[in-house]
Amino acid sequence: MQQSYNSTLLDNAVAQLSRLPGIGGKTALRLALHLLRQEEEAAVSLGQSLIDLRRNVHYCKRCHNISETEICDICSSARRDPTSICVVESVKDVLTIEATHEFHGLYHVLGGVISPLEGISPSDLEIESLVARVADEEVREVILALSPTIEGDTTNYYIFKRLAPYDINVSIPARGLSIGNELEFTDELTLGRSIINRIPFSDTFTAGH
Amino acid sequence: MQQSYNSTLLDNAVAQLSRLPGIGGKTALRLALHLLRQEEEAAVSLGQSLIDLRRNVHYCKRCHNISETEICDICSSARRDPTSICVVESVKDVLTIEATHEFHGLYHVLGGVISPLEGISPSDLEIESLVARVADEEVREVILALSPTIEGDTTNYYIFKRLAPYDINVSIPARGLSIGNELEFTDELTLGRSIINRIPFSDTFTAGH
Repeated sequence: MQQSYNSTLLDNAVAQLSRLPGIGGKTALRLALHLLRQEEEAAVSLGQSLIDLRRNVHYCKRCHNISETEICDICSSARRDPTSICVVESVKDVLTIEATHEFHGLYHVLGGVISPLEGISPSDLEIESLVARVADEEVREVILALSPTIEGDTTNYYIFKRLAPYDINVSIPARGLSIGNELEFTDELTLGRSIINRIPFSDTFTAGH
Repeated sequence: MQQSYNSTLLDNAVAQLSRLPGIGGKTALRLALHLLRQEEEAAVSLGQSLIDLRRNVHYCKRCHNISETEICDICSSARRDPTSICVVESVKDVLTIEATHEFHGLYHVLGGVISPLEGISPSDLEIESLVARVADEEVREVILALSPTIEGDTTNYYIFKRLAPYDINVSIPARGLSIGNELEFTDELTLGRSIINRIPFSDTFTAGH
């Protein structure tokens, strides 16, 4: 995608934008021409915000979530329950779970899931650091909130085995029907399992469903 | 879209990215998290290229195409024919026509087309400066290469009337079947007109079709 637009600055901006995931050459050109039509301040704010983001946002040494400080706000909050750790694949999943307002413990970001096909082995993930936390901190519960896929289940099982020596509860989020979705649009596997794992209706009165 | 991601720097980058056309909050977050995973150099190059683009790319005073200098490379080239001006809607159209390598004259970028519905009147466009060029320069031909839409045709007609006092040829690009497209997928209007305006087959041997 090294087309020439009669301006090396435009060529460069388009080349840089094209490197972003999901942004092809045509979109990159459209974005660059859009910026040219804006006030100078708009392009400077955007450019500077991306530089500042990468320069000053780091990863929490404890849970590997993004953080502007050595230990992130969640890990250092006195209002979070340090006995409960929710294990997630990525930083994005922390944001997704935080948005539910239903989890009040700490996180541990793995950085992916075990995937032999993609060459991702346990040593590429933050699994040893999770085991170390369970060994050293006052952890009583680990929730494995990975994707319900083969890779996620493999990773769940691997972590479960690694944590077996410790006296803690290891759980996964419930799997079943999506609330608000029509039954007929639920896939067969999920529907079948949700029937096997059916719950007493009276439980739904108390559990905040 | 002023969600909080536990980092004001991330919030800010996402907010800035979301202002780009076609980029919503979710895509902006995905792009920001992608940049966080790259080398610092990648984010700095991208950010700086956008700042440099807006700061140093300007518009040619003669044809209003983008230019890093007062007069653009096309206008100042001795190899272009200054007697032929191709009128286009936008900077992007200059790039599109240049890519065909079939036009060797100069351009004139209008900055849009006349559109009463969108409140764009002739005075919002670079029409007076086009008339001035025809009056002052050695122009013999003006090609109106606007979109074949109602707005484009309205603008063509307006410009045609404004240029009537001058002894020049005013043309539009041929309209007809798209080369390489199946006949059955051509819209009826285009197909009908292309039959009315049919060309002798023998002409196609010489005209470089």
